[in-house]
Amino acid sequence: MRPSGRELDEMRAVSIETNVTKHAEGSCMIKMGDTHVLCTATVENRVPPFIKGSGLGWVTAEYGMLPRSTTSRMRREATAGKQGGRTVEIQRLIGRSLRAGVDRVAMGERQITVDCDVIQADGGTRCASITGGWVALKLAVNKLIKAGDIVSDPLVSPVSAISCGIYAGQPVLDLDYPEDSEAGVDGNFIMLANGQMIEVQMSAEGSTYSRDQMNLLIDLAEKGVSELSAMQLAATA
Amino acid sequence: MRPSGRELDEMRAVSIETNVTKHAEGSCMIKMGDTHVLCTATVENRVPPFIKGSGLGWVTAEYGMLPRSTTSRMRREATAGKQGGRTVEIQRLIGRSLRAGVDRVAMGERQITVDCDVIQADGGTRCASITGGWVALKLAVNKLIKAGDIVSDPLVSPVSAISCGIYAGQPVLDLDYPEDSEAGVDGNFIMLANGQMIEVQMSAEGSTYSRDQMNLLIDLAEKGVSELSAMQLAATA
Amino acid sequence: MRPSGRELDEMRAVSIETNVTKHAEGSCMIKMGDTHVLCTATVENRVPPFIKGSGLGWVTAEYGMLPRSTTSRMRREATAGKQGGRTVEIQRLIGRSLRAGVDRVAMGERQITVDCDVIQADGGTRCASITGGWVALKLAVNKLIKAGDIVSDPLVSPVSAISCGIYAGQPVLDLDYPEDSEAGVDGNFIMLANGQMIEVQMSAEGSTYSRDQMNLLIDLAEKGVSELSAMQLAATA
Amino acid sequence: MRPSGRELDEMRAVSIETNVTKHAEGSCMIKMGDTHVLCTATVENRVPPFIKGSGLGWVTAEYGMLPRSTTSRMRREATAGKQGGRTVEIQRLIGRSLRAGVDRVAMGERQITVDCDVIQADGGTRCASITGGWVALKLAVNKLIKAGDIVSDPLVSPVSAISCGIYAGQPVLDLDYPEDSEAGVDGNFIMLANGQMIEVQMSAEGSTYSRDQMNLLIDLAEKGVSELSAMQLAATA
Amino acid sequence: MRPSGRELDEMRAVSIETNVTKHAEGSCMIKMGDTHVLCTATVENRVPPFIKGSGLGWVTAEYGMLPRSTTSRMRREATAGKQGGRTVEIQRLIGRSLRAGVDRVAMGERQITVDCDVIQADGGTRCASITGGWVALKLAVNKLIKAGDIVSDPLVSPVSAISCGIYAGQPVLDLDYPEDSEAGVDGNFIMLANGQMIEVQMSAEGSTYSRDQMNLLIDLAEKGVSELSAMQLAATA
Amino acid sequence: MRPSGRELDEMRAVSIETNVTKHAEGSCMIKMGDTHVLCTATVENRVPPFIKGSGLGWVTAEYGMLPRSTTSRMRREATAGKQGGRTVEIQRLIGRSLRAGVDRVAMGERQITVDCDVIQADGGTRCASITGGWVALKLAVNKLIKAGDIVSDPLVSPVSAISCGIYAGQPVLDLDYPEDSEAGVDGNFIMLANGQMIEVQMSAEGSTYSRDQMNLLIDLAEKGVSELSAMQLAATA
Repeated sequence: MRPSGRELDEMRAVSIETNVTKHAEGSCMIKMGDTHVLCTATVENRVPPFIKGSGLGWVTAEYGMLPRSTTSRMRREATAGKQGGRTVEIQRLIGRSLRAGVDRVAMGERQITVDCDVIQADGGTRCASITGGWVALKLAVNKLIKAGDIVSDPLVSPVSAISCGIYAGQPVLDLDYPEDSEAGVDGNFIMLANGQMIEVQMSAEGSTYSRDQMNLLIDLAEKGVSELSAMQLAATA
Repeated sequence: MRPSGRELDEMRAVSIETNVTKHAEGSCMIKMGDTHVLCTATVENRVPPFIKGSGLGWVTAEYGMLPRSTTSRMRREATAGKQGGRTVEIQRLIGRSLRAGVDRVAMGERQITVDCDVIQADGGTRCASITGGWVALKLAVNKLIKAGDIVSDPLVSPVSAISCGIYAGQPVLDLDYPEDSEAGVDGNFIMLANGQMIEVQMSAEGSTYSRDQMNLLIDLAEKGVSELSAMQLAATA
Repeated sequence: MRPSGRELDEMRAVSIETNVTKHAEGSCMIKMGDTHVLCTATVENRVPPFIKGSGLGWVTAEYGMLPRSTTSRMRREATAGKQGGRTVEIQRLIGRSLRAGVDRVAMGERQITVDCDVIQADGGTRCASITGGWVALKLAVNKLIKAGDIVSDPLVSPVSAISCGIYAGQPVLDLDYPEDSEAGVDGNFIMLANGQMIEVQMSAEGSTYSRDQMNLLIDLAEKGVSELSAMQLAATA
Repeated sequence: MRPSGRELDEMRAVSIETNVTKHAEGSCMIKMGDTHVLCTATVENRVPPFIKGSGLGWVTAEYGMLPRSTTSRMRREATAGKQGGRTVEIQRLIGRSLRAGVDRVAMGERQITVDCDVIQADGGTRCASITGGWVALKLAVNKLIKAGDIVSDPLVSPVSAISCGIYAGQPVLDLDYPEDSEAGVDGNFIMLANGQMIEVQMSAEGSTYSRDQMNLLIDLAEKGVSELSAMQLAATA
Repeated sequence: MRPSGRELDEMRAVSIETNVTKHAEGSCMIKMGDTHVLCTATVENRVPPFIKGSGLGWVTAEYGMLPRSTTSRMRREATAGKQGGRTVEIQRLIGRSLRAGVDRVAMGERQITVDCDVIQADGGTRCASITGGWVALKLAVNKLIKAGDIVSDPLVSPVSAISCGIYAGQPVLDLDYPEDSEAGVDGNFIMLANGQMIEVQMSAEGSTYSRDQMNLLIDLAEKGVSELSAMQLAATA
Repeated sequence: MRPSGRELDEMRAVSIETNVTKHAEGSCMIKMGDTHVLCTATVENRVPPFIKGSGLGWVTAEYGMLPRSTTSRMRREATAGKQGGRTVEIQRLIGRSLRAGVDRVAMGERQITVDCDVIQADGGTRCASITGGWVALKLAVNKLIKAGDIVSDPLVSPVSAISCGIYAGQPVLDLDYPEDSEAGVDGNFIMLANGQMIEVQMSAEGSTYSRDQMNLLIDLAEKGVSELSAMQLAATA
């Protein structure tokens, strides 16, 4: 029995509200249960030095949590003087995942920065950031296409992310915070809508898992991704 | 004529939505036109070392802007490695202003941290932060009173803040970004509901102002504060 | 009765010794009672990027305190790894104030950096820095005029600064440290010689003030500024 | 055909030299082809604050690369002022992986820090660090057991790590640098000797992979781990 | 012929003005020609952790240069975010040198921090800092003796420092900046009044020196130290 | 009697193994007893801005210690966020010493960076770094000469470094850690093979030394340098 009463293969209620800020080229507020992440996409004509003149585009991401997005207040990273290890890991994952779904030639030599800021956290913020981040990215790209700055759509499929884990001995989909803090095994699965994989991260601390268990979690993830990608397409149609 | 078409003494539309996050002891989203600030109040039983054992309470504040809260994307302070000078100035002002409206004996030896995070900026973010920050603070205090942890209300009056300035030669109330970026003189006025002053900051860059002009701006500020304090009371009743 | 025995509207003894270091283009040691600040002005032909090619000049300021300028030793900011919030606030104020008294077209595309280093502190260091900083700036400008690098004097009036506050219930001029640490209300007033205002900052912590009290402090400030501006002119004649 | 001429499922030559420094409680130099990592284990009686008094042990890890361990010289992280994102990610992975193989009750309330410093890099440094790090850890634990400080061995199985990837369209085991820099898909697999999984990280950038391909890589990893774990046991017998 | 017209073995004019700031327990302004250093000594009852409870005293030093103490303005170290390598080297030298002249048992378990801040630089600032720093230290110790807090004088001899070098092929005493920037060999000599040596640092860059040349420089240094120590004693009598 | 049983003028066993890493242009592992330092030389065609276009070469050095090179584990400087004062002092000394033995015209406009990383420490790491650093530098230069990039050898003599000190009242050569931590006087001597001096640093803490004692230490150093320079020549022949 899950704390939330959900079925083992049941995601939390998901909503994606688009165009929530007036300045960003693309934006959305994604809510997966009580996890709320504001995602914005910023288009710039400059690219990082290592691809200057290549004609290729670049997508990068940054991640942050508001100090009181969590149960007890976290120290603001700006006062700590640097981004913590967890933050750096997450934003590198978001950027890498989104890039895997981009045709960088079609995108043209420009950079899109996706900012994912957690307004309220209840587990699964990195997955929500990727799923919502793709929506913000797609909206920004749509604007570029409409303006004629991009001719052929560089985003061929949604990039979706979902967590799965082994909670109380059972494989469950989309862990919330009470589950996440108890789970012995915990994985994040990033995929295209057709199930092709972009990144799999499964880790155990003070525990291990078998290959069979791994396969059960991937089955769950495939179910979650197919639901999420439909919502992403609907939100950006 | 103001860019927004407002009267000289007319504030932007103001709304204060309370209890917008589930974790914080008090919270609100304050909107002054297109300026949106999320304010949360966190109660902790520890106090800073310099008042330990004094029986007095402490209120402090932190301020931040999301990277794409502005027209063009700002660098995230956590990646810059420190809070900029402007940020530090603003959060010191918020903390100082809120403390001026607190009976620190009645509050008891605890600390309340008010976080003000700008979701969308269009001028006047520091004033919105103070006005909304007081609401979050009051909601957290109300919870402490209800729980019997505080007996007598340490917040006797709202603390409200409004900007005024001289735009196109005329004194105007509540500058938005287009006005703010052109105004030769620009002031922030923090007051109690009865007009008693907590802080006045009026500055001119590449220009100066007379004592008469200063008095006109204070007149406007008094009008703004009386409207804001009524809304703050309504939001926290 | 003030701790120093001064009248309510009496400033401390002020002296301004000019040309105290051999390297700087302009310099002075300003003493306001036991507050001693060394001010130097450095002329450079480069300007910040945001005005490059504009033909306009720029004046900026930095502020520091020697570790044992204070009653008990302060940590050196260079070992702390950054300038504290108070330092940043003060140096931004000095720069902004001095710029308000500059005709940046007449100054020409060059930068003057005013460094204000507190040798001994007894209250009012930011005001002494502005008043002395203007003297250093003026001496550097005089040298540029004499050399023919500047044709028309960009400094039309001294910029003077003085603190006033409510101490033991009475409005007093030029607070020293014992008064400053007790005063409930405390203001800094930066003006031109003719009383036109550049910046007013009045703040109360754990207290408030009325508009009438504010007016009494401005009266005192006007008296102080008229005395200071005469001394500044004499020192730079 | 692999650049090194190896078979698809052939690891590089592996050697593990133990007790290579006189100060550390456990140490080894692990060489996987031209990748050389010095691993040391330091035993301390203190533990991190969050487990003080729990009776549980803690294992943590740090990772570094000498500036000229790479083809062109890298900037020293100590002069850059912080560990980069890649370093932080790797050392968190090493610590998490080693902890998964530790019975923290049997270990007792002490901390062992495993330092992994890359002397020469040719791909796969994080896997070599985990495999070698376990050897250093085991040697330190053996010393504690011999001294009677630990009664029952808290390390029940080697923790081994190996990379696999898709290079030139084919699944290969143990990528060296020329392969790693070309591979479209790249995974790190951390397992116990019996094939139970601790962590799987498979990522694609600008590409994706199918579930079938993933399974082929896991097959390879299982082969590699079974060879590595035998060597780890031999080195620490 | 030296640029200043001095004899080869002639120091610059030296003056030591004592008790120049009202807060510090000991202070002086030492001038060696155009090199001016403000030295203050701060007495604290706490000591560093590594000697807590030992009954021994500790003397430490910090060094800084005002931004415009030099010909062209230097960046303030507080804005650079750290003390530079040269600063750290110098302040470690000052502390080490002063400690060599202290009977730390007689001093008792307290710390004296000597701050040396260069007001104007013209070569030889580290030597002036040591010589002046000893004077500030001695004045602070005298105050402790007078108060009965120290019974037996822990400072048995002045610690004096002087630079010598080979300029234009000739050994010269007390290099000023024009000499220092040209000299091929440059040494700093720290001694007690009786010629016992505390520290010798002689370095050549892009050049070397013979043992005979070294001896000539030590001869000069002994002459300089005997003059300086007499002045230090006079200033602290 | 020395703890190691060595004669007063006897160095520890010295070995220099060359070409120990495959990436660096020059490298060696120098062992002086239990002090082991890995030295690598990196050749780059760029030079620091202050000599750009001068035709002159530049040699610089960096120094580090592995965390467990010492008896108890040291904090990694990359996590501390900066290089400590001791590290900075040492690497400046290494760079300055090596430059003194270089004909920078013959070297041509290129930079060679010498990295000295202490694998195991037992006293005298800075001297071993200089002696071994010269070997790495020479090997890199030999490669440039062989390739025809340099015509005339810019390294005319080895640069060698050795420590001497007064231990238990007697002058001893090449202090190991047990001696170094007890010695009242401690010096580092950097010389060319012919005894010409590059840098002498002799310091006493809580003690002093006479000129006669200094001369005895220099005699020892000359003996040590003559032995070291022969080994350096042999290693690079």
